[in-house]
Amino acid sequence: MTVTEIDELVKRILRGEVRLHEVEKHVKDSNVATRVRRRAIEEISHLDLSPLDDNVVDFNDVVGRNCENTIGCVKVPMGIAGPLKVRGDHASGEYLIPLATTEGALVASVNRGASAITESGGAVVKVLDDKITRAPVFKTPSLEKAVEFIEWVEDNFGKIKEVFESTTRHGRLLRIRPYVVGRTVFLRFEASSGDAMGMNMIVKATDEVSRFIHENLPWVENVSLSGNLCTDKKAAAINWVLGRGKSVIAEAVVSRETVEKKLKTTPDRIVEVVLRKLYLGSGRAGVLGGFNAHVANVIAALFLATGQDLAQVVDSSHCITYCEELDDGDLYISITLPTLEVGTVGGGTSLPTQRKALEIIGVAGGGEPPGTNALKFAEIVAATVLAGELSLLSALAAHHLADAHMRLGRKK
Amino acid sequence: MTVTEIDELVKRILRGEVRLHEVEKHVKDSNVATRVRRRAIEEISHLDLSPLDDNVVDFNDVVGRNCENTIGCVKVPMGIAGPLKVRGDHASGEYLIPLATTEGALVASVNRGASAITESGGAVVKVLDDKITRAPVFKTPSLEKAVEFIEWVEDNFGKIKEVFESTTRHGRLLRIRPYVVGRTVFLRFEASSGDAMGMNMIVKATDEVSRFIHENLPWVENVSLSGNLCTDKKAAAINWVLGRGKSVIAEAVVSRETVEKKLKTTPDRIVEVVLRKLYLGSGRAGVLGGFNAHVANVIAALFLATGQDLAQVVDSSHCITYCEELDDGDLYISITLPTLEVGTVGGGTSLPTQRKALEIIGVAGGGEPPGTNALKFAEIVAATVLAGELSLLSALAAHHLADAHMRLGRKK
Amino acid sequence: MTVTEIDELVKRILRGEVRLHEVEKHVKDSNVATRVRRRAIEEISHLDLSPLDDNVVDFNDVVGRNCENTIGCVKVPMGIAGPLKVRGDHASGEYLIPLATTEGALVASVNRGASAITESGGAVVKVLDDKITRAPVFKTPSLEKAVEFIEWVEDNFGKIKEVFESTTRHGRLLRIRPYVVGRTVFLRFEASSGDAMGMNMIVKATDEVSRFIHENLPWVENVSLSGNLCTDKKAAAINWVLGRGKSVIAEAVVSRETVEKKLKTTPDRIVEVVLRKLYLGSGRAGVLGGFNAHVANVIAALFLATGQDLAQVVDSSHCITYCEELDDGDLYISITLPTLEVGTVGGGTSLPTQRKALEIIGVAGGGEPPGTNALKFAEIVAATVLAGELSLLSALAAHHLADAHMRLGRKK
Amino acid sequence: MTVTEIDELVKRILRGEVRLHEVEKHVKDSNVATRVRRRAIEEISHLDLSPLDDNVVDFNDVVGRNCENTIGCVKVPMGIAGPLKVRGDHASGEYLIPLATTEGALVASVNRGASAITESGGAVVKVLDDKITRAPVFKTPSLEKAVEFIEWVEDNFGKIKEVFESTTRHGRLLRIRPYVVGRTVFLRFEASSGDAMGMNMIVKATDEVSRFIHENLPWVENVSLSGNLCTDKKAAAINWVLGRGKSVIAEAVVSRETVEKKLKTTPDRIVEVVLRKLYLGSGRAGVLGGFNAHVANVIAALFLATGQDLAQVVDSSHCITYCEELDDGDLYISITLPTLEVGTVGGGTSLPTQRKALEIIGVAGGGEPPGTNALKFAEIVAATVLAGELSLLSALAAHHLADAHMRLGRKK
Repeated sequence: MTVTEIDELVKRILRGEVRLHEVEKHVKDSNVATRVRRRAIEEISHLDLSPLDDNVVDFNDVVGRNCENTIGCVKVPMGIAGPLKVRGDHASGEYLIPLATTEGALVASVNRGASAITESGGAVVKVLDDKITRAPVFKTPSLEKAVEFIEWVEDNFGKIKEVFESTTRHGRLLRIRPYVVGRTVFLRFEASSGDAMGMNMIVKATDEVSRFIHENLPWVENVSLSGNLCTDKKAAAINWVLGRGKSVIAEAVVSRETVEKKLKTTPDRIVEVVLRKLYLGSGRAGVLGGFNAHVANVIAALFLATGQDLAQVVDSSHCITYCEELDDGDLYISITLPTLEVGTVGGGTSLPTQRKALEIIGVAGGGEPPGTNALKFAEIVAATVLAGELSLLSALAAHHLADAHMRLGRKK
Repeated sequence: MTVTEIDELVKRILRGEVRLHEVEKHVKDSNVATRVRRRAIEEISHLDLSPLDDNVVDFNDVVGRNCENTIGCVKVPMGIAGPLKVRGDHASGEYLIPLATTEGALVASVNRGASAITESGGAVVKVLDDKITRAPVFKTPSLEKAVEFIEWVEDNFGKIKEVFESTTRHGRLLRIRPYVVGRTVFLRFEASSGDAMGMNMIVKATDEVSRFIHENLPWVENVSLSGNLCTDKKAAAINWVLGRGKSVIAEAVVSRETVEKKLKTTPDRIVEVVLRKLYLGSGRAGVLGGFNAHVANVIAALFLATGQDLAQVVDSSHCITYCEELDDGDLYISITLPTLEVGTVGGGTSLPTQRKALEIIGVAGGGEPPGTNALKFAEIVAATVLAGELSLLSALAAHHLADAHMRLGRKK
Repeated sequence: MTVTEIDELVKRILRGEVRLHEVEKHVKDSNVATRVRRRAIEEISHLDLSPLDDNVVDFNDVVGRNCENTIGCVKVPMGIAGPLKVRGDHASGEYLIPLATTEGALVASVNRGASAITESGGAVVKVLDDKITRAPVFKTPSLEKAVEFIEWVEDNFGKIKEVFESTTRHGRLLRIRPYVVGRTVFLRFEASSGDAMGMNMIVKATDEVSRFIHENLPWVENVSLSGNLCTDKKAAAINWVLGRGKSVIAEAVVSRETVEKKLKTTPDRIVEVVLRKLYLGSGRAGVLGGFNAHVANVIAALFLATGQDLAQVVDSSHCITYCEELDDGDLYISITLPTLEVGTVGGGTSLPTQRKALEIIGVAGGGEPPGTNALKFAEIVAATVLAGELSLLSALAAHHLADAHMRLGRKK
Repeated sequence: MTVTEIDELVKRILRGEVRLHEVEKHVKDSNVATRVRRRAIEEISHLDLSPLDDNVVDFNDVVGRNCENTIGCVKVPMGIAGPLKVRGDHASGEYLIPLATTEGALVASVNRGASAITESGGAVVKVLDDKITRAPVFKTPSLEKAVEFIEWVEDNFGKIKEVFESTTRHGRLLRIRPYVVGRTVFLRFEASSGDAMGMNMIVKATDEVSRFIHENLPWVENVSLSGNLCTDKKAAAINWVLGRGKSVIAEAVVSRETVEKKLKTTPDRIVEVVLRKLYLGSGRAGVLGGFNAHVANVIAALFLATGQDLAQVVDSSHCITYCEELDDGDLYISITLPTLEVGTVGGGTSLPTQRKALEIIGVAGGGEPPGTNALKFAEIVAATVLAGELSLLSALAAHHLADAHMRLGRKK
């Protein structure tokens, strides 16, 4: 496309003849379309939008996959924490952790926690469960028909599984949990999804199954492909109780010496903060899954750096953090994440910078066998959360939080 | 710094003589330090990290404010939705909405909703409350002393307010809500914070007040500067009930014609989805504040684009979405956000691309008078959430979700 | 025991030589002991306690089973509602429902609802699940040992089941759900319990299993026989999501004529109340399982009349009530109770008056086969809850609540 | 009424000419009506219902106040615990506590806890807040009108208060908290209610205010007198956060010697149970307000004995129990009840046996000045809850629970 043609298109937008989301109808190349939209907005808003420009993102890969009506890129600083020693079933060794954030002190804090854990022998991590879920909602004529429906689903699980899996390469249907409210029926599909987080897969598969159900039971009406019992991107008891994504636990024993020298406090001071802040405080606040210090900070920074779905920070950050002083005076610390939704393929993971972040951790792309890369990543995420909790709890116990915020979170 | 000096520093890192977070001790310029770290990781991990490079971010502005141990930037595609007509007390007119996301279909969906709302006359928006909160936790000798403490706080509110406000230019202490559990006391400070989201301000101010308390009541021990009754970045009933950040409501009446022609469904179909998915489904799932379709998606994309704190997507996405068919057949839709934590100054808002996103909306920097820019922004965020809800609910009602996901969320 | 001996014993109590709970050491007959304690308190407090006297309760049956340190009986008025037509799998026919309450208007309200349902053909009821649960909590040396423990439990389920069932005649172990938090392990035992509510049974059985575990895995320490993941007598998401006791649903279609003539309102008015009160209101209030009008009232009155555990009103009253206007103008109403904890044997069910209440319903004692009486009872409870919801929602819709309360809840 | 007349009436019931709830139309005396209904049911069901007979309850006092369609009384054993030493602002001294229950071991357990607390100097108790609430729900034409409405309410608080208080002798309107969801408005009225629990009072008063609102703002439609933001008899975050009824805290320091000798365990064992069961367990279970051992048991038994509203056990049993080992080795224990709904007048408190229970405690009837008796009662309830928690936690720590249940909860 010539410069003149671009200019002409921008003018047509300004004249209202072409709308911003219609640019791709006139230019095939999404990089050019992105520039055209940016130029048009510059004219409309009298702004210089050149910072949004990006020289590594090919918008032809982006549009139709990750974003529409593109006008450029937002750029968020990425810092590095670690090395962090992890002793999981899939991750074993020391890892560098990229974190993208605009919150001063966060990277430094995780880095300090990682250092304390690593010098104490590392974080032990276990993945206890792994599944993605989606729950369409159906309307039936009556309670009796609702019960007939869920019995039919149970009886035909094999056939449903076949239909489900015909739409996906790596997805495997594990279980269907029915929920009935009067004559309304929700089916919560639980599936494994290889190295992908799995929402795209399961949307397609449950849609196909819904069609299959309707063919066989015409009196069952699919009201909505999602009935919010999934539950995606909301704080929900069902996820907290049944898990979603990876259910992961990490622990470490940090020597008293490390606590005192590196973290500038003592195990019993940390235990005191855990007790009054995480249990009495969170309990009194009526949290759902929020018995922790700042897990959402670490999850958000890791998710952003590695191309995860940022809206899933809502559910993925549910966590109970626990500390006790052991008989020998060392500090025991664990974090329990029942609903960590992560993947190493799909979503934003293939974007250039996000891919690099995954490569730094060593978990980019699909694993061999499929699923193992996502499991390895989940273990490293959990260990990083552990580091973040250890460091902030120590800072609170040592009354250093405000100081750190002042020093690192604000420009003088 | 010469190339040779840089090479030398990278080698020292590789030899373990300099650690990654110590680079700034050797190079003052954080842009150079960022490059040094990136080079070192390239050597360690055998990666080409050039995509992380960035030509608009000055890391000297970043380090010491937004991020440490920087190695570059993550880049997320930004799309544009709108124009969206907003009829608020602060925002009035049509706005372009930048959204940064890697989830295909999201921008297109919000765009469609914005178009439907705009052609129906726009979204009416009201901000009902505005405050940031922080709740330190204290230990007292006994229940009787705990009661004495909170009575002292009440009696000395004026003096405490003075101490609080001595640390901040725009922060104003509004109220202190005491919570007592046995002999443990939490004070939930509520403050206005001008155009900033306010966490940095309130951390500093409550720290100062804690010191003041200890000077006057030496038997009151400050256990932790945050006692989780704040509650920051966790799903918490206390925020849902009392509000945090901006409490905002948006509504629109969308003509039946628009629903049918643009959204390809009918008002009663949308109402049916709202009833069974948002109320029966979310109720059965045991959500906290999650009576909506996908508010977290819109909040996350807007927060990322405009430099908000991404971990606050957790609380800020709490929402009840509501629809009804009016007597004349039009669709009434509202969204209610009790805990929207946003700002137009501070945090990541001054980073180059984020600043541009705020400028596109027309809310960059401080308002005149202070606070009005953040209020205007909150109204536009709420209207955008309304657009996102309207569009997804319509897609679900029309059974287009899976199709859209397949078309826009995956590359053929 | 002679009157003189009784007098002497009372005097010794007054002199502090015998404490109130030691009376049975001096008199074997608990009826006499009850009278002695009552006499002593009359002397201490200068009261006439003769109303506490009771001529049908044999305290020798009570002490050592239902109550200690007995001084008599509390007496609560019992009213009768019904006949209520029930169409369940176990209950089929018209039933009279005894309700014990001190809240004016309650019995009349349930009676009115029962009448409306019965004349519309009755309530269809289904029991979807049935189990009692108990979750002891264990401490293990480390996360790795915690995982080893739960794997051992899975591998040895057959043997555990044997140990469990060796302690009980009707209890059957159905499933064990492990929950791990760091190195702390909770095992949620799910068991069927015949016609009993089952808590006594499962306490004994899990205690035996805990011993068995400790014998085999000496490094597993049983911290507490209940770890609150049971969850008994607290509002808990785990019950709401997984169910506890009976999971029961009841529905009815009430003709428009009945709604208008008997309930003095219209289906759309009722639907409006359901929408704004039960969903918007309860949602905004942040309820756990409380999407209903006054289920706890009905459950409490039925539980008290029939000798159920009154503290379980807390969990058993969780309910979603749902209404819609059908195409033909009739009213559809359903109630969904996931956690109804009831029994027809054990607990207070064998006390004379409570037994009579169960007999009036026709469900006293054990069923044939075992468990069927409790299932029948659960169906009737659900139908009664349906009647209560229908009636109160109608009263609210017709703005008759305050009037009824004034007329029936207060003496002129 | 002659025996023949009674016989005739029973026959007319059996012939379907008179319905059970119509008996009072034929006999004025409710004692006779009660007997007539009982006789009829005996005929219908072939049962001997004489145990339901009662010689102290005058059903003429009951019908029209506490119960309709009466057929007699349910009788529940009442035991006595204590003396329990209480050091409150209203209760001061040693109290005997009547508990009505069918759960074996409960009275003995509370008694043991009371003894331990009393010999350690008693329970310190504080009431921090006191109010009853009711929240009608209104529909307005639009969000803008909703905001206009709540501003009107704020501006006219004085006049509203006048209208409210014109309907009640002891009720005082304290505050109105508005909640807006789209164009739906909830007004949460908070009022003091003297010695009554207050629901009857506040229903009448808010009904009057609703009328007043409608007169002044005809475009405000009252949808329902209760909008579930009250929240009555449901587990609701709004009560947990804002309180309802009395907000009471009790604490005790129990000497290590008492813990060891009387409670057969050690402070650190109790602390361990509290940590893993009450915080990790309840947290993992997703409780709302359920961070305790068995508060609902004690509340239910006290409520039943003293004529409180049993459905309010649901909210009144919300509690955080907390323990720690003090430096000198003694045990610190506290319980925190934010939502204790109790009264000493109204409801079931004037029934003969319930009145006696209140007299035993020393809190029957209205206080001088009004309200002080209910406050005194609330303090004693809290102290009793403390005793119950201490005893059960000790039993769990000592692994005596199953034993006690077997010994006291079952007949050999």
